[in-house]
Amino acid sequence: MGDGSSLCIPTTQSFMINSTAPPSFTWGVLLYDGFEVFDAFGPIETLNQLVRIRGYENQTMKIIAKDLKPVSSQDWKGRAKFGQSVVPTHTFKDPGPVDIVIVPGGKSMDPEGTEQAAKYLKDHFKEFKYVLTVCTGAGIAAESGILDNRRATTNKQGWKFMTPKGPKTTWIAEARWVVDGNIWSTSGVSAGTDGMLALLQAIYGSAIADTIVVGMEYHRNSNGTPDPFAMINGAEDVKPSG
Amino acid sequence: MGDGSSLCIPTTQSFMINSTAPPSFTWGVLLYDGFEVFDAFGPIETLNQLVRIRGYENQTMKIIAKDLKPVSSQDWKGRAKFGQSVVPTHTFKDPGPVDIVIVPGGKSMDPEGTEQAAKYLKDHFKEFKYVLTVCTGAGIAAESGILDNRRATTNKQGWKFMTPKGPKTTWIAEARWVVDGNIWSTSGVSAGTDGMLALLQAIYGSAIADTIVVGMEYHRNSNGTPDPFAMINGAEDVKPSG
Repeated sequence: MGDGSSLCIPTTQSFMINSTAPPSFTWGVLLYDGFEVFDAFGPIETLNQLVRIRGYENQTMKIIAKDLKPVSSQDWKGRAKFGQSVVPTHTFKDPGPVDIVIVPGGKSMDPEGTEQAAKYLKDHFKEFKYVLTVCTGAGIAAESGILDNRRATTNKQGWKFMTPKGPKTTWIAEARWVVDGNIWSTSGVSAGTDGMLALLQAIYGSAIADTIVVGMEYHRNSNGTPDPFAMINGAEDVKPSG
Repeated sequence: MGDGSSLCIPTTQSFMINSTAPPSFTWGVLLYDGFEVFDAFGPIETLNQLVRIRGYENQTMKIIAKDLKPVSSQDWKGRAKFGQSVVPTHTFKDPGPVDIVIVPGGKSMDPEGTEQAAKYLKDHFKEFKYVLTVCTGAGIAAESGILDNRRATTNKQGWKFMTPKGPKTTWIAEARWVVDGNIWSTSGVSAGTDGMLALLQAIYGSAIADTIVVGMEYHRNSNGTPDPFAMINGAEDVKPSG
C-alpha cells in the first residue's frame, strides 16, 4: 500500500497533556566521523519537537565527540564523495552529567571515535537512565560490553558484521526495536526514529508522542515488531556463543 | 495498524540496476538559523545512500548559507533550549553551479538567511533542474515568486501562516507532496523524505529508490496522496487570490 491510509495516525482528541510536571533530562548524542545522519537526526528531531511543548522545554542536549572539531558524516575511509559536518558541544573525556544516551551508527566510522564512545558507555553506564542505540550503533554498545547478557537488535543489512561484536548478546532479527532493561536497541537508520518515539512514549506517555508525531507529520511504526527488513536481508536470530 | 505489515516494502527482486551511466548532479541544500533538522537530513540521508551505490557516486553536495559560520537549528527567537549546528560549504553570494536545490523549512528562522535564500532561488531558478521544498521551505519559495501560478503544498500545522506567502499559488491540502513542472513541494518535516525518494525515483528509477529505502530500512509512503495530516490540522485547499 504505502499510501499512508492504513497507518496509525493520532487524532486531535489525543492531545490532552497531563498537567503534572514532567521530568527533564540531559540527552547525550554520541558522534564520530562517518556517523549516519538519519540515525542521529531522526531521534534529535523528536527532541527538538519535544522542547516546543509547553512544560517540556527544560531538556538539555549534549553532542559528544572525541574533540570539539566538527564531526563529518562522510564515510571514514573516504569512499563517499561527500558528508555533512556537525559541531559537537562536549568531548568524551569531560561531558559532565548525561541521563539518556543516543548512540547512532554508520557504515564506515572513525575507529578512534567509536572506541572512545564505547569506553564512555562502559565507564558511565551506571549513571544512565536509558541508552538508545540506532543501526550499527549497537555494535559500539556491544563492544563496550553493555549488551552482554541482553537481548538487542541492529541494522539488518549489516547483521552478519554487527552481531559478532556482541558474542554474549541474544540478537533478535525480527524487530524494529528491542527493549531489555534500560537499553533500547533499534534496527537500521530510520528505525531509530520509531524506537525513540517509543522511548519518549514510555517516559512521557502517548499524548506527548502523538504531539511529536503530528508535529513531524510522521507515519510512525508504533510496534517493535514485525520488521520486514529482517526477511529482505535474510537476518536470523543469533544466540550467545560464549 | 502502524505495525509496518501493510507498508510498501520492496523485495530483493527489485534491485536490478540499469547499467547505462546515470546522470550526476550538484545538489544544493539551503540552510538558515532555525532550520528544521529532519527537513534537511531526511533528503540528505537519501543522497548519502545514493552515493554508496556503484555508478551513482559522482554526485556533489553544497550546503549553502548566508555565510560560512555553523548554522544552528535552534529556534531563531531563542525560545527552544537547544539546537544543533551544521557547517555550510558555500554562501548564497557565490555558491557556483547547482542543479537541484533542497529548501528545508523551520518554525522560527533567521529572516536574513531566508531572505537571502529566497533571492538566491529567484535569481538562479532558470539554472535549476529541480527544486524540492520541505515543510515551511515552501514559504521561502513562495516569497521568491517561483511558486507563482503553480500548485504546491506545505506544512499542515502552519498552513494558515504559510499559504498567504504565495497568493498566486494554488495550495493543495490533501497531499504528502505536489509536483508542478520542476518544483516538488512536500508537506511537513518527514514528508520531505518521501518526496525526495519520489524525486530520486523520477530521476533514477524505482530500483535505485528501492535500494535507498532498504538501505535506510525506511517504511516509505510511495504516493503523494492521501495526507491524513491535512484533516488532523483542518487544512483546506487555497486558490490564488490575486
